[in-house]
Amino acid sequence: MIPVILSGGSGSRLWPLSRKLYPKQFLALAGVRTLFQQTVQRLGFEGVERPLIVCNQEHRFIVNEQLGVIGVSAQCILMEPFGRNTAPAVAIAALKVLAEGRDELLLVLPADHVITDEAALRQALEIARAAAEEGEMVLFGIPAERPETGFGYIKTAGSDSDSALIPGAYRVEQFVEKPDIVRASEFVRSGGYYWNSGMFLFRASRYLDELRSYESDIYDTCVLALERSKVEREVVQIDAGTFECCPDNSIDYAVMEKTSRACVVPLAAGWSDVGSWSSLWEVHAKDGNGNVLKGDVVVENSHSCYVHGNSKLVALLGMEDVVVVETKDAVMIAHKDSVQDVKKLVNALDAEGRQETRSHCVVYRPWGGYDSVDAGTRHQVKHITVKPGAQLSLQMHHHRAEHWIVVSGTARVTCDDKSFLLTENQSTYIPIASVHRLANPGKIPLEIIEVQSGSYLGEDDIERLEDVYGRTDKVKG
Amino acid sequence: MIPVILSGGSGSRLWPLSRKLYPKQFLALAGVRTLFQQTVQRLGFEGVERPLIVCNQEHRFIVNEQLGVIGVSAQCILMEPFGRNTAPAVAIAALKVLAEGRDELLLVLPADHVITDEAALRQALEIARAAAEEGEMVLFGIPAERPETGFGYIKTAGSDSDSALIPGAYRVEQFVEKPDIVRASEFVRSGGYYWNSGMFLFRASRYLDELRSYESDIYDTCVLALERSKVEREVVQIDAGTFECCPDNSIDYAVMEKTSRACVVPLAAGWSDVGSWSSLWEVHAKDGNGNVLKGDVVVENSHSCYVHGNSKLVALLGMEDVVVVETKDAVMIAHKDSVQDVKKLVNALDAEGRQETRSHCVVYRPWGGYDSVDAGTRHQVKHITVKPGAQLSLQMHHHRAEHWIVVSGTARVTCDDKSFLLTENQSTYIPIASVHRLANPGKIPLEIIEVQSGSYLGEDDIERLEDVYGRTDKVKG
Repeated sequence: MIPVILSGGSGSRLWPLSRKLYPKQFLALAGVRTLFQQTVQRLGFEGVERPLIVCNQEHRFIVNEQLGVIGVSAQCILMEPFGRNTAPAVAIAALKVLAEGRDELLLVLPADHVITDEAALRQALEIARAAAEEGEMVLFGIPAERPETGFGYIKTAGSDSDSALIPGAYRVEQFVEKPDIVRASEFVRSGGYYWNSGMFLFRASRYLDELRSYESDIYDTCVLALERSKVEREVVQIDAGTFECCPDNSIDYAVMEKTSRACVVPLAAGWSDVGSWSSLWEVHAKDGNGNVLKGDVVVENSHSCYVHGNSKLVALLGMEDVVVVETKDAVMIAHKDSVQDVKKLVNALDAEGRQETRSHCVVYRPWGGYDSVDAGTRHQVKHITVKPGAQLSLQMHHHRAEHWIVVSGTARVTCDDKSFLLTENQSTYIPIASVHRLANPGKIPLEIIEVQSGSYLGEDDIERLEDVYGRTDKVKG
Repeated sequence: MIPVILSGGSGSRLWPLSRKLYPKQFLALAGVRTLFQQTVQRLGFEGVERPLIVCNQEHRFIVNEQLGVIGVSAQCILMEPFGRNTAPAVAIAALKVLAEGRDELLLVLPADHVITDEAALRQALEIARAAAEEGEMVLFGIPAERPETGFGYIKTAGSDSDSALIPGAYRVEQFVEKPDIVRASEFVRSGGYYWNSGMFLFRASRYLDELRSYESDIYDTCVLALERSKVEREVVQIDAGTFECCPDNSIDYAVMEKTSRACVVPLAAGWSDVGSWSSLWEVHAKDGNGNVLKGDVVVENSHSCYVHGNSKLVALLGMEDVVVVETKDAVMIAHKDSVQDVKKLVNALDAEGRQETRSHCVVYRPWGGYDSVDAGTRHQVKHITVKPGAQLSLQMHHHRAEHWIVVSGTARVTCDDKSFLLTENQSTYIPIASVHRLANPGKIPLEIIEVQSGSYLGEDDIERLEDVYGRTDKVKG
């Protein structure tokens, strides 16, 4: 059984904590580990191979780093140049596995879900495996216990043992689009309805056969896109020119709703898709007033709130059923009944070209990261952190000079034909147009304050002459 | 007529915008000018002398600067070492005026009120002047048109012309403490009730006579405190040791409720004490949804909110009757019904020793100011602005070195026995224990980035060797 972890989402419903360049799945929203790490780690048992990861290429360094922290190496990382929904993502994963001559069962898992009962998950996986071995396409269904209007529902042919394909797996009778509250309540009352979890188990060839017969365009494009991909060790860079032509579609629409082999295995394992701020509130333990408080937060006379302070003091007075999420460059205040509009808000901000939906003030790079702490028309101040042993690219700028002051650790600085070490409380000056590089030769993180001075301070004023991370895009470092 | 402007408040009800070191009256909350400046400027007509200002000594540089901007020089600035409420503040002002042999009418005005109808104010002042000339103690009363529970009420003997002392001035029948909503509603219905505005007009000697007969302790202490004051040009530094012993009391309790000479002159002039965030919402023009939005704010499906963003994007979704005030180091979200609890919250934060109630990230100094933009255990980054022609003190630090990078303007740097100029994109290093000074010899503001490095970075690590502003307290610059 090979896990295929779908990690391509942009997580806009959890803005402003989730950003396009650092979305939801890579955040530690429900524990010490990130959702992505939790998803990988919960599969650490016998009979499950190392995962195959599908992610956006912008997130490749985050994926690598987060896998490194938990000591897992993926068997393959499929990098999408952009998202085309789940049907093509899983198709390319299946094609890759088949190309290696291994027609295994694929366990398709979104990277951004919470599951609290791992024993229940393993039981459901055993049932699903038996069904998938028989050629069935298993969809894990969450017993619908509340009338949620935000999920798709699946009606099974009945849950008595007669209608079971094998014990614990049931034939799908009908897929139901997100219902209104009245219908959702009926579904819960009548029983036999499940929420579509977006988790699947099927054999690679079975999925591809079904996809080819119902959506041959997707199948054909994915075959071509994989053929034209750039492969380097375990990393596959899907060909953008080809993948661009691929129709955007979900597994559900493209295959599951059409195939005759779909079945549901119920999964009652404390599942949540953490699909909104209110569902994040739900999965957390509350205090005596029903509040979930994170960070430097004080509340007075407030109830059933989710408050997440990241960079400063957050004070609440007399609020109820409200979500407050504070980050360094944006704060969002929403009534719980309005959290589904966050995505709409993010789209509106995107349309205005705002950066607050794309990246955090703290920007992550393979060598570490930086935090923009001050900016004016002709200057900018960054706090740069370089990991031990890491180095930025050899680079130059046409429009800005830089002053570097080491505040912790040791830096190796290259500036034109000079190379020297700087330690705490030492500084240097990088003139405009000089070829330079910053590296951390030490064993602890290097922290420097960079003061940029010049008439143009855009991140794209960079010429990369050499980069150990193989980057050619015009971004800092 | 001499205005006595009471500017000693700490404005904690308007936290987090208002801070102890930069309170409400010095903020531009209702227009381009600050409330203090508006208060001074609205008295710019014939028959009114230059103002006498009572303020906390911590605010002296703010008072000076704000008067300078509007081109007004006070006839006297009385600096309190700490607040003792309004009765002593006005007593010292009256004693000062009498000491100069000028027994004038004193127009006592809080520095933090809004008045929109200046013509109505002038009319009321004319009536009040006539009454005060007769020896009356005039209290300006705001006709109670709404059942506010946050104000003290005054019942007059009747508003028909028979009971008027002179046309438009009425004898006080009764002072009423802040009523509950039922009584407040009765007052509004019955008529003849006024809110206590905290604005008064009386002759200096009349006030002192009454104070001496009802509160001789206050009178005697104030006489002594003024005698022992340090006077330099128009600035009076009230003696702390003496003033400390002065009872804390308001004009109302100490004199107005006891004297037989109290009368009310109605003032219907668009008055507001801007005493809470909801009253600030009231004085502003609203958009089509009843919202008042300031700064970088986006709202969706939200009504009757006051949102004030200062340092970052603020997004509101589905909120109603809510106040959101965002500053660089604190954000407050309060239901309008809870804004009276802001003071309680501030007191609680004070008790924990939190800095967020005392000062802003941006700290004002007579020479300019600074913004703390980044900090770690062994470093701190400040963006420092020095006004043209201004200079910091000649100083040294025992525990920190400083790196200065000029990002705009020109600096004159003194470091031990060297003195030199730095311009944009130039930098220098100030070693630990060197005697140094930063000055702006230019015509535009000097902006520098200062990176401090050391084992102790407290503001009190400073030895002042020389200061053009006469400061000896251990604060930066």
